[in-house]
Amino acid sequence: MRDVAIIGIGCTTFGEKWEASFRDLFVEAGSLALADAELAGEHIDAMYVGNMSAGRFIEQEHIGALIADYAGLSTRHIPSTRVEAACASGGLAFRQAVIAVASGMEDIVVAAGVEKMTDVGTGASVDTLAGAADREWEGFMGATFPGLYAMIATDYMHRYPLTREQLAMVAVKNHRNGAKNPIAQFRSEITLETVLSSALVADPLRLFDCSPITDGAAAVILAPLERAREFTDTPVKVLATAQASDTIALHDRRDISCLDATVVAGERAFAMARLPRGKIDFMEVHDCFTIAEICAIEDLGFCKKGEAGRLTEEGVTALNGDLPVNTSGGLKACGHPVGATGIKQVCEIVQQLRGEAGARQVDGEIGLTHNVGGTGATVVVHILGVT
Amino acid sequence: MRDVAIIGIGCTTFGEKWEASFRDLFVEAGSLALADAELAGEHIDAMYVGNMSAGRFIEQEHIGALIADYAGLSTRHIPSTRVEAACASGGLAFRQAVIAVASGMEDIVVAAGVEKMTDVGTGASVDTLAGAADREWEGFMGATFPGLYAMIATDYMHRYPLTREQLAMVAVKNHRNGAKNPIAQFRSEITLETVLSSALVADPLRLFDCSPITDGAAAVILAPLERAREFTDTPVKVLATAQASDTIALHDRRDISCLDATVVAGERAFAMARLPRGKIDFMEVHDCFTIAEICAIEDLGFCKKGEAGRLTEEGVTALNGDLPVNTSGGLKACGHPVGATGIKQVCEIVQQLRGEAGARQVDGEIGLTHNVGGTGATVVVHILGVT
Repeated sequence: MRDVAIIGIGCTTFGEKWEASFRDLFVEAGSLALADAELAGEHIDAMYVGNMSAGRFIEQEHIGALIADYAGLSTRHIPSTRVEAACASGGLAFRQAVIAVASGMEDIVVAAGVEKMTDVGTGASVDTLAGAADREWEGFMGATFPGLYAMIATDYMHRYPLTREQLAMVAVKNHRNGAKNPIAQFRSEITLETVLSSALVADPLRLFDCSPITDGAAAVILAPLERAREFTDTPVKVLATAQASDTIALHDRRDISCLDATVVAGERAFAMARLPRGKIDFMEVHDCFTIAEICAIEDLGFCKKGEAGRLTEEGVTALNGDLPVNTSGGLKACGHPVGATGIKQVCEIVQQLRGEAGARQVDGEIGLTHNVGGTGATVVVHILGVT
Repeated sequence: MRDVAIIGIGCTTFGEKWEASFRDLFVEAGSLALADAELAGEHIDAMYVGNMSAGRFIEQEHIGALIADYAGLSTRHIPSTRVEAACASGGLAFRQAVIAVASGMEDIVVAAGVEKMTDVGTGASVDTLAGAADREWEGFMGATFPGLYAMIATDYMHRYPLTREQLAMVAVKNHRNGAKNPIAQFRSEITLETVLSSALVADPLRLFDCSPITDGAAAVILAPLERAREFTDTPVKVLATAQASDTIALHDRRDISCLDATVVAGERAFAMARLPRGKIDFMEVHDCFTIAEICAIEDLGFCKKGEAGRLTEEGVTALNGDLPVNTSGGLKACGHPVGATGIKQVCEIVQQLRGEAGARQVDGEIGLTHNVGGTGATVVVHILGVT
């Protein structure tokens, strides 16, 4: 297989984007990525798009063809494919695009993610998102997503020394980072008190432990590494792509506080990149809830189970720490347009590796992305590095 | 890229399957494919599944992980990915699986398709299916799928010498084939009079011009060609995989009676296989409506525009004709569980190439599948041959 590089990135601002349609969101992100790579649409050979549930959010399926059309590429009849794995849809789109380029099947490929969530009410959103879990054995029994992650948090806090304050510090850190990110949905810093006094959503998770409902799109452009410098002076190499699955329902897991799919996808990624964990300089992990960031740091192997709360409190995962986590603000503060999140994570790592992250810039040459579907039934991990 | 072969196939019966859930359908098809290849689940490296709209049909997304779980593969944490392109979802799943094996990323890969359509009422089904077209500019304006294909038929019959009787002969032929297929939803032969006197759905299309609402699943197992004979004495080689897109809305097309994505995907497939059209011995084309089979035969280049009606009348596309089309009964008689159709087409070609098609057996060494999403915004063409 050929080595693959990222030659362009583009991202809309994230938020409640009443002025933009689903189609507009993708076109904006795609246009930004093309401009970043100094390419025109005619250079694109294929597209992959991650989207969780346009069927329920905007009553539209057939998303691959739709976005190729609205991107002005229908006359060239390029292959355009939607992939879906709930909140990991973006990460999967990136992975399929990497495989398409690595295989030699395609040269210049767009990997994109888009979700327009605010065209339905909050109740419909929550119900749609429950489709990422086991509808028959969780959703129909009344479990919502915050409810499922609350079970993880309850189990975790019963077994490991994580304090309620440490959990809140994840949100405080990610809002601090988001405040420095021009695309973030929430650009205000918050205090520990804000989190601890916010409304209880599902005990122990409060409003500020939860990522928001978000509209947004992100796109990246891939090329064979050997051709990357035709398009950019700062190509970023894809060092590994790894994907793992697990039971769809939380109650079927070996251990609900350890996401085995994260463990396995992480191991596969480090093996593929032939790198020890210590070489990772910073990462974007899937903090759909504060407890999810705690689990991710541990399940990816950066510390033992039960230690990530202390690391967070000590500032290890802060912008100026040894292992900055979610420099973008994460899902928590940057926002979580589910299908777009996995691609936005890649955009953030690329900005950091290029030294284009402005006030949230950190040092390093290798970054990691970690994108989770549902409560961990799909996990996608990518490792990216400067060339 | 490596050559890829099909080493196992499995298909549920198609129909209104009240006794089976979405999950059951996949497990049945997957188990049949494993048994056919004499493999166990532990040999599977990855899965791709085509599904159009489980989000709206059964309120469930995250289909890749779901089916890996219910297939008993969650403990091995295999990558499992859903792809969607409306009614072409199955064809796309097959294509992504081919790319995964060809790239060297995976060895033994399941490509599956599944749709459970009858758990919602007919009105909801029709509305969900309209999500395959342009929701904003077609669906919201009142266009249903039969309505859109009726526009194609009206335009076509105005410009080319296709009679209403010739159109009906497509349905008569496909029901004749379906009557010989043990998995077909409709196993009764019909007469020209049955079609011509059936209820008008969207002028000129009548009830028997339309494919039905169907539950079903199909699965095939792929391996590198060089390893295929470890598993089967009758591997079928994938000679070409091709995909093309077009505008999502019919009114944006260059010519609504010619599906350009079929033309382009066909050309790409023949170029990849390095074969002239005359080498194709039989094919499964996407006859969601009778007019669609007429267009497909022409747009794939097997005759000039306007001639397919006459070829049908002359019996060229019948089981005993020179170019048998839809030996399975097609979408019309075998049934059309949208996400499964593209995989079922592959199963039919493999059965024919192996000489296992029973009463509907035809001669030949090379077959073609043609799977359409929406009114032609996505088309996937595969060419398969004996080894």
